[in-house]
Amino acid sequence: MLKVAMLSTGEEVLHGDIQDTNATWLSNLFFEQGYPLTKRSTAGDNRQVLRDEILMLALNSDVLIVNGGLGPTGDDLSAAIAAEVAEQSLVLFPDWLEQMKTRFAQRNLVMAESNVKQAMLPEQATILDNPIGTACGFKIEIHGCLCYFTPGVPSEFKRMVREQVLPDLNQQFPEVSDLVCHRLYTLGTSESVLEDQLHQVELPDEYMLGFRSYLPFIEVKLFGPAGQDNEMYTLVEEIFSHLSECTVSIDQPMLAQLSQVMHEAGKTLAIAEQSTRGWLANWLFSDDEIYSLCGSSWVLSSKVSGKMSSQEPVAAALALASATKEKSETELALVSGELREDGFTLALSSSEGEWAQQLKFRREYSADERKILIGTIAADMLLRYLSSKPVFGQYSSTLSEKQIYIPAASL
Amino acid sequence: MLKVAMLSTGEEVLHGDIQDTNATWLSNLFFEQGYPLTKRSTAGDNRQVLRDEILMLALNSDVLIVNGGLGPTGDDLSAAIAAEVAEQSLVLFPDWLEQMKTRFAQRNLVMAESNVKQAMLPEQATILDNPIGTACGFKIEIHGCLCYFTPGVPSEFKRMVREQVLPDLNQQFPEVSDLVCHRLYTLGTSESVLEDQLHQVELPDEYMLGFRSYLPFIEVKLFGPAGQDNEMYTLVEEIFSHLSECTVSIDQPMLAQLSQVMHEAGKTLAIAEQSTRGWLANWLFSDDEIYSLCGSSWVLSSKVSGKMSSQEPVAAALALASATKEKSETELALVSGELREDGFTLALSSSEGEWAQQLKFRREYSADERKILIGTIAADMLLRYLSSKPVFGQYSSTLSEKQIYIPAASL
Repeated sequence: MLKVAMLSTGEEVLHGDIQDTNATWLSNLFFEQGYPLTKRSTAGDNRQVLRDEILMLALNSDVLIVNGGLGPTGDDLSAAIAAEVAEQSLVLFPDWLEQMKTRFAQRNLVMAESNVKQAMLPEQATILDNPIGTACGFKIEIHGCLCYFTPGVPSEFKRMVREQVLPDLNQQFPEVSDLVCHRLYTLGTSESVLEDQLHQVELPDEYMLGFRSYLPFIEVKLFGPAGQDNEMYTLVEEIFSHLSECTVSIDQPMLAQLSQVMHEAGKTLAIAEQSTRGWLANWLFSDDEIYSLCGSSWVLSSKVSGKMSSQEPVAAALALASATKEKSETELALVSGELREDGFTLALSSSEGEWAQQLKFRREYSADERKILIGTIAADMLLRYLSSKPVFGQYSSTLSEKQIYIPAASL
Repeated sequence: MLKVAMLSTGEEVLHGDIQDTNATWLSNLFFEQGYPLTKRSTAGDNRQVLRDEILMLALNSDVLIVNGGLGPTGDDLSAAIAAEVAEQSLVLFPDWLEQMKTRFAQRNLVMAESNVKQAMLPEQATILDNPIGTACGFKIEIHGCLCYFTPGVPSEFKRMVREQVLPDLNQQFPEVSDLVCHRLYTLGTSESVLEDQLHQVELPDEYMLGFRSYLPFIEVKLFGPAGQDNEMYTLVEEIFSHLSECTVSIDQPMLAQLSQVMHEAGKTLAIAEQSTRGWLANWLFSDDEIYSLCGSSWVLSSKVSGKMSSQEPVAAALALASATKEKSETELALVSGELREDGFTLALSSSEGEWAQQLKFRREYSADERKILIGTIAADMLLRYLSSKPVFGQYSSTLSEKQIYIPAASL
């Protein structure tokens, strides 16, 4: 197994002024391409710390990606330190200097003296072209480790990795093959419950399960070698058979799944929101398909809807759904009712009837988390209805208090 | 100078399934509290790699924060490895076991056998309470380095760091003095323009400027030593004098600023959204104060509002604002009109008159970025109105095409 490491450099990354999206992007890409990272590291622009870190990583890895520190300013130290650690001189690469001068000239600019520094590289380095910036990357071997130095600007970094680093790695390590990944998106359960349910699934060698958990979903991911479609699908089906109750979509996020069934059904939708305060509309309407089927949708403050507060909560949600459908002249209406001490309510109104339920959180959530959970469970009611499943799901993170279904005929 | 390191653990972080927002958050907070990180590191759930990494970091640092790996599942290894590296036994902490059982019982759940693992800690560990989860944190000394082990769930992590880790660090290192940071939130400009504008500001030693850029804001941060309030405020004022046109708020995010002036004005607000599709309501109403002043608010699809599409865009936005104010019986209405080839429109209706403008993007943005920019500029119109500033701002990232103001008298 190859040992692959990445080092991100720069004070703004180290001190959290910016998210290290380059690291996340590279880690994900490398995993899928068969080069999973062994470790990742972040250092500032401190010469000593950088030198120690590059040396340690080179000694302990087969491949090292260093990101950042190739700019023209004094705190860009990567090339100088690479030379030092590789015990080589830092020399001028006249070809890159010419390249930079030409680029500046093309934009009617004169190259600043400080840019000369960007053509100073360790003498045995191989240049990695940067067609969209002045910082060239370079490749160099340090103590037997293949090191790629790359620029920090995300667009330049990504292009260099895709066009030069990965092809070069594939040439160096022809035996590496990429992985395939399938995902089940689950709602309303916990990682430990999922693990229990999947306990009896036996995975062949080279296959593995992963969980990715972010409110309100947990993704169950199955990784396996490319080119074994049959084995893969059999396993996905087996996993699904254990998780069918909580799975909202496979290989695409819930919103994409909902968008697809909305498109197939072609039914217009209106939304009225109290507890979710616009979160639901904002989320659902970020999808063009769903937005194109939307009638006008409301956000109602408790004050505005004050007339209804004395009503029993589930009845109030039902009434709001019904009124919303009628007022917007849509075929469907989805509603989040008021948030009260005793829980929250959701209702769905359709030509076949109306569903409403009251649920209670099993634990404490922040206001934002509550909106996400309530809104997603509302969307799940809609998805279930359109997929001809029972509209009321089971969510272990919430507790169902009361569920009402009124068929259209009795209205 | 203290050497402070952080280790993030977990395959999902290492392989880029999730952004390591905990690391960014902690790095930022620790910098401001006087504990700037020396380095940061990420490892997966590999026992060997984790052990080596914790050992190396402990040997080279005074303080180490380890994040993640405290869950109930088999790949959560942090406690076991901490015990190993610290050369201590892993023992059951019965108090925490009881705590967990109580928590499960309160939710009418039976604790799974797998959770017992979360009460197994190195024998000399000190528990760090987790009031909102089953993973307790713990503190332990490893080769002279003060190590804090914390849960990966962001809400649990942040609360533990704020309530327990930082206070404990301040007790251990009373000599550490924190930095004071003041922030100017700017809208509609670029970092290089801001740098140019601040070029002539001379900072005394120990003071420094930083930029933090995320759509649609750029925060200008001034760091300085605590206890020098007068010097600090003079500098903040000088900086503000250069940036007054693009500054939306100081030392609090724009939404908090808007909430405050909304509260002071006490005026009710309705919103109608076309191009922003609910983003604006969702953002504004995440603030309780603004939500409490909201009349019913609308999201309208282009289809629904089809009648208006033939109208001239700025006139259409004005008409929508006027109708929304009337229909919702509020004192103010804020509107994002349709998004067309030639730009987007915004309108504000008040008892003093109506403002509408059409703007065009100067560069390409994704659909999500467009919603954020349009919605924030809409909110800026409202904020400017309530702050008695000119309602039309100047945004270099967008281009103003047409601006109309109709005083109430002429309506």
